[in-house]
Amino acid sequence: MIIFSELLQQTPSVSAISHSRIGVERESQRVTLDGKLAGTDHPIVFGSRRFHPYIKTDFAETQLEIVTPVVDTVNDLFHWLAALHDVVYQSLPTNEMLWPLSMPPALPSCEDQISLAKLPDFKDVLYRRYLAKTYGRRKQMISGLHFNFELPAVLVEALYRQQCEIKDLACFKTTLYLKIARNYLHYRWVITYLFGASPVAERNYFKHHEEKPQKIVRSIRNSEFGYRNKENVQVSFESLKIYLSDIESQIRKGNLLEEKEFYSSVRLRESQNIVRCKQTKIDYLELRNIDINPFERYGISKNQIVFMELFMLFMLWTDEKKNGDDWIATGNQTNNEVALESPLAPTCYRTNGLKIINLMKKMTKQLNLNGYEEVLQQSQDMLIDVTKTIGGRMTKGLMATKQSDLATAIGLKNRRVTMQVPYQLNGFVNMELSTQILMFDAIQKGIMVDMVDENDQLLKLQLGHQIEYVKNGNMTSRDSYIVPLIMKNKTATKRILVTAGFNVPIGVEFVNADTALAAYSRFVGEPIVIKPQSANYGRGVSVFQFSPSLADYQQAIRRAFTECSTVLVENFFAGPEYRFLVINDKIKAVLLRIPANVIGDGHHTVKQLVAIKNKSTLRGLNDRTPLTKISLGVVEQAMLKSQSLTVDSIPVVGKRTYLRKNSNISSGGDSIDVTDQIDFTYKEKAVAAVKCLGAKICGIDLIIPDRLVPVSSHESYSIIEANYNPMMDMHCYPYKGKKRRVTVDVLEFLFPQLTNL
Amino acid sequence: MIIFSELLQQTPSVSAISHSRIGVERESQRVTLDGKLAGTDHPIVFGSRRFHPYIKTDFAETQLEIVTPVVDTVNDLFHWLAALHDVVYQSLPTNEMLWPLSMPPALPSCEDQISLAKLPDFKDVLYRRYLAKTYGRRKQMISGLHFNFELPAVLVEALYRQQCEIKDLACFKTTLYLKIARNYLHYRWVITYLFGASPVAERNYFKHHEEKPQKIVRSIRNSEFGYRNKENVQVSFESLKIYLSDIESQIRKGNLLEEKEFYSSVRLRESQNIVRCKQTKIDYLELRNIDINPFERYGISKNQIVFMELFMLFMLWTDEKKNGDDWIATGNQTNNEVALESPLAPTCYRTNGLKIINLMKKMTKQLNLNGYEEVLQQSQDMLIDVTKTIGGRMTKGLMATKQSDLATAIGLKNRRVTMQVPYQLNGFVNMELSTQILMFDAIQKGIMVDMVDENDQLLKLQLGHQIEYVKNGNMTSRDSYIVPLIMKNKTATKRILVTAGFNVPIGVEFVNADTALAAYSRFVGEPIVIKPQSANYGRGVSVFQFSPSLADYQQAIRRAFTECSTVLVENFFAGPEYRFLVINDKIKAVLLRIPANVIGDGHHTVKQLVAIKNKSTLRGLNDRTPLTKISLGVVEQAMLKSQSLTVDSIPVVGKRTYLRKNSNISSGGDSIDVTDQIDFTYKEKAVAAVKCLGAKICGIDLIIPDRLVPVSSHESYSIIEANYNPMMDMHCYPYKGKKRRVTVDVLEFLFPQLTNL
Repeated sequence: MIIFSELLQQTPSVSAISHSRIGVERESQRVTLDGKLAGTDHPIVFGSRRFHPYIKTDFAETQLEIVTPVVDTVNDLFHWLAALHDVVYQSLPTNEMLWPLSMPPALPSCEDQISLAKLPDFKDVLYRRYLAKTYGRRKQMISGLHFNFELPAVLVEALYRQQCEIKDLACFKTTLYLKIARNYLHYRWVITYLFGASPVAERNYFKHHEEKPQKIVRSIRNSEFGYRNKENVQVSFESLKIYLSDIESQIRKGNLLEEKEFYSSVRLRESQNIVRCKQTKIDYLELRNIDINPFERYGISKNQIVFMELFMLFMLWTDEKKNGDDWIATGNQTNNEVALESPLAPTCYRTNGLKIINLMKKMTKQLNLNGYEEVLQQSQDMLIDVTKTIGGRMTKGLMATKQSDLATAIGLKNRRVTMQVPYQLNGFVNMELSTQILMFDAIQKGIMVDMVDENDQLLKLQLGHQIEYVKNGNMTSRDSYIVPLIMKNKTATKRILVTAGFNVPIGVEFVNADTALAAYSRFVGEPIVIKPQSANYGRGVSVFQFSPSLADYQQAIRRAFTECSTVLVENFFAGPEYRFLVINDKIKAVLLRIPANVIGDGHHTVKQLVAIKNKSTLRGLNDRTPLTKISLGVVEQAMLKSQSLTVDSIPVVGKRTYLRKNSNISSGGDSIDVTDQIDFTYKEKAVAAVKCLGAKICGIDLIIPDRLVPVSSHESYSIIEANYNPMMDMHCYPYKGKKRRVTVDVLEFLFPQLTNL
Repeated sequence: MIIFSELLQQTPSVSAISHSRIGVERESQRVTLDGKLAGTDHPIVFGSRRFHPYIKTDFAETQLEIVTPVVDTVNDLFHWLAALHDVVYQSLPTNEMLWPLSMPPALPSCEDQISLAKLPDFKDVLYRRYLAKTYGRRKQMISGLHFNFELPAVLVEALYRQQCEIKDLACFKTTLYLKIARNYLHYRWVITYLFGASPVAERNYFKHHEEKPQKIVRSIRNSEFGYRNKENVQVSFESLKIYLSDIESQIRKGNLLEEKEFYSSVRLRESQNIVRCKQTKIDYLELRNIDINPFERYGISKNQIVFMELFMLFMLWTDEKKNGDDWIATGNQTNNEVALESPLAPTCYRTNGLKIINLMKKMTKQLNLNGYEEVLQQSQDMLIDVTKTIGGRMTKGLMATKQSDLATAIGLKNRRVTMQVPYQLNGFVNMELSTQILMFDAIQKGIMVDMVDENDQLLKLQLGHQIEYVKNGNMTSRDSYIVPLIMKNKTATKRILVTAGFNVPIGVEFVNADTALAAYSRFVGEPIVIKPQSANYGRGVSVFQFSPSLADYQQAIRRAFTECSTVLVENFFAGPEYRFLVINDKIKAVLLRIPANVIGDGHHTVKQLVAIKNKSTLRGLNDRTPLTKISLGVVEQAMLKSQSLTVDSIPVVGKRTYLRKNSNISSGGDSIDVTDQIDFTYKEKAVAAVKCLGAKICGIDLIIPDRLVPVSSHESYSIIEANYNPMMDMHCYPYKGKKRRVTVDVLEFLFPQLTNL
């Protein structure tokens, strides 16, 4: 017999426990904002339920299930929980939200009015009809939180190498997880005590004549009144072989329809790439007994997860009794007792519980594990003071308020907090906004998202067998490599466009600051633009609508040379600047960009007007917002000076005061969608120019003196720049005008099958 | 009547004359190294003659024609002349070269042995048969240099705007070029005097009974004994209309087969995108009367071109006589006289000539043109001292040596000088070597090459209607944009390869130097590599085959952080490093790379051995040579120290002393082609890994302990890096082993039709 506590003490990798592979499945009923079960279908914005990896429906059409990917840190898990909840909240009809309890809201008096999930695969519908018939629709409306747990490979392999009894790694893992499973089933009452949170059923959950708890309890869901198999379904956990043959025998007898109907608190799981029916080993465990924590936005807290990880390690560490099935049977009984205790009364297993926590503390010391002090202390506190348990806190709340009102209030608050900054994707707010929005859309549509490198804004997207990598939300396999290399070089871009007959500003290229400085006389009397050959965001660009003075010219040249070793001096073509976003030869959005400005109200100074404009949540810094805060730096002050103004001037009512000449959003400019308010001939030009450059996803900037007059000559427009890494978010959330979800266009370009699903 | 001298004086753009659009066509006979007409066909390495824009055959199979693209500076013209000559010399059979004279070498006694050009289009063959019959094959063996000349558009348009007589720009240009043409035909004797260089015919050029010059002359080619139309072919230059109708009438009468048979010293040309037969305007002139200058490697000097540009301007400037055709007729007569004068006697038009030069000087003063002093002075000198003319210099040479020996010696010298550094492409030696080699191959195969940006190594290639842009000789439209973005990120690359089951070094990523420095204990006792996440050429990489000391570790971490903000510490996999070059899923080359080293001879010190090794022309700096000079810097000296050596140690015979740990060519490593000496399973791995990353042109680096033992496990190899911008030249010119022309593979990948031409 393997003594796992000894093995654990011998391996230094045990601290890797904090990198266990974990995932969460959280079920929730969709309800209206006043807490009534939703009458609508699962939102169609989630695309096909045939494959959606993140957002599914469980038993009922209203029962939404959020499934995180498997990750290896608690923080990553919560990033995903945040993101998935965000997508769900933003995608629900405006009058719906998620019910924050395991117990469902009031159910229809007639059970048939509970609509089964309308799944596309008829096999799945049949299964739900069978469940409805076998257990009743009401019982199936309960929601839980499933926790998938796998020890890190490095730890399992280290343990395996420490022993020589089992010669095969797969066998070793099976033995290890079976021990954890049996111990968990024995000790799971601790979890029910600490996290149990289903004290009361709402209307029509129990039928009139049905047996039900006669008082408030800790966890209806984890008690005999919860959602469980018939008494006659007995399955042994002695060995995987017996476990499997028991289940098979239950199926043969007609007690179970298939394996997944076995509602154990622990399910033995094999990695999904192995066909289910051939199960020969255990790769991870699925724990199914955790109630939804109503006090947490995502149904569970970080500390709960940390405690669960340590608890799982303890299940491996602590000895079990010889007869495993008896050991489990005792556990089942204890658990039912604890579940049916009053949530405000201490459990009768309190001493036992405190002993377990102490043993866990000892284990952390012996294994040199840090970072668990807080959760162990909390658990101890909860054992000493029952009002600190989740069930206790909830029941205290129920003294003042009805459970349905409490749940509705919590649901509303969760919804409000989640949707606070609508353009952000919670959990990933450190990423560039374009990437956040693209991730949102991918998650919504059921495209699997894998973070390849967060700092690099590099995502892996997968739909079926198709894999696509995307950087910055717009750089994809659809563009050929040479295109950005050409576009990085403004001279090359211009040469190619000119050759193809497009109008671009005529210009001179300088590779030497002295030559450029000396060339002033060539540009006297001309409106010009001075810009670095390769630079973004308008950095180092100077615009002279009237010919610059020698000093201004020299300063602008020097500024441009700080950005790039090649500088262009181009003739200036006057007019407003438009960004055309072209994806796969189609115009997806046209944005008028106006340089940073304020509009006078006759009262406030420029400085104050800027502060007021900057208050908008749409404005921020560093590409994390759709618009940028207006600065009052050197450039802006010089611009004011050129208009004989200062930051303290008070512009008259309605007068627009410009603070920049360049219209980049990143320097505080305004974005106004004009996709439907521009003559189509400009769209044709933009598409043709992008085609000529060979680009597939491209933002191309045109100056157009009058966008409503069709293109007639070279004076109608001038192409000033093409961008291979165009911002997406400014189209999704413009300052004014229609929102254009161009990130969805990118996804549909990458995965054309999305439009046919 | 327009007074062009006045218009010229009124326009400031006249200095643009030095940016005239110019091109050269240079014909040459292919001869053996002892100066005999080549017996071979036009080399098949030049691909198809159906479309080759640069290297053609003229009348005879041996008569090679080099055609430059149209450029707008003399320097660019000579870059192209250099490159084209380079390609021709390197492509000729090893016992052939170019004959440096206009007059052909000794011809076969039987004229039928002169092989007509074996052109693929039968129409072209028929035309040559007609010429052979009409003029005789011998006459057609003469070679010349055609100079295409177009005034810069900015100048022509400025002149056009200065007048109001002609209302149409095309008409104006026609008028302008007709004036230049008539004056040129009148004054071309000056060119014959200065540049005439065909004094003597070799054996069998003239038939026995044929009329021929009885003495040495200035230019047989430009005289009545040269290559010209029958007397009855008279074409007026009074207007374009009359010119065209005259030619048409000559064709009708059977005196000409088609327009191109009209051998005028000036041909009126229209831009090629307009169908020839519809000629309605003149866009440029083709001057056909310049003899090959035997003293110049490319058949003409820069000063000759500069003089020609100024002379053309003078032709526009100076008045002409009323009756244009009489004016031309006088010119023809004078030219014939000058051509038939003794090349060592002053011309009888000397006074006139000096007057013309003086008028040209005056013109430059009146137009404020600089930079022509030297060529005007030279021409004046040549008029004063006939021995300074090209014909004079040549004839002086003929006093001591036979013309054929002189020409052979010159030919040999030109060949030797051109082929001095075989891997370079003359004219473009400032570009990266990979680009030079790719350009060479493109030119050789007849792909049109356009320099989009020289500093950026950005080329435009065109074959038929297909356009491809290429950067650094290897970045093309064939790779998708996301691939280099992934490969730039070493962590992302590794994640993708690991997921697909490839063996890569296990590693830890640090984004913070302090964390990395503090992590030393994690790596104690392990062989490790420390490297920046994104960096090239092995910069900032430290290899510790044995565990580093704390100080070494810290220094290496700091060094890596200077290159990139993310640093990887990876386990070190020992063994030699191989670069696999994969193009379109096929292995094109495998290179063993050995770190910089010297092999002892028992006499020389390390320092001396390095100096000797560095003498190889293959070694240089800055990617302009296939190998890099070995340095003796800090890294190398530390490496010596670790072996208890200094730069002054004398290694024993045959002992290899390493100076670096990293094997990059750019730090002095040796490259050894082993494409045919490696087990195919490694090639399969490399191709599979590149496919997995989605790359089409990729250099992937594997460490392989024993390349002859097939892949059997993860210990057989480790993939350490994938490069989206792999050097090409090191495969083309390895230190040892077979040369692999991988640049041709790139071209064939871009233009698959090349292999079927």
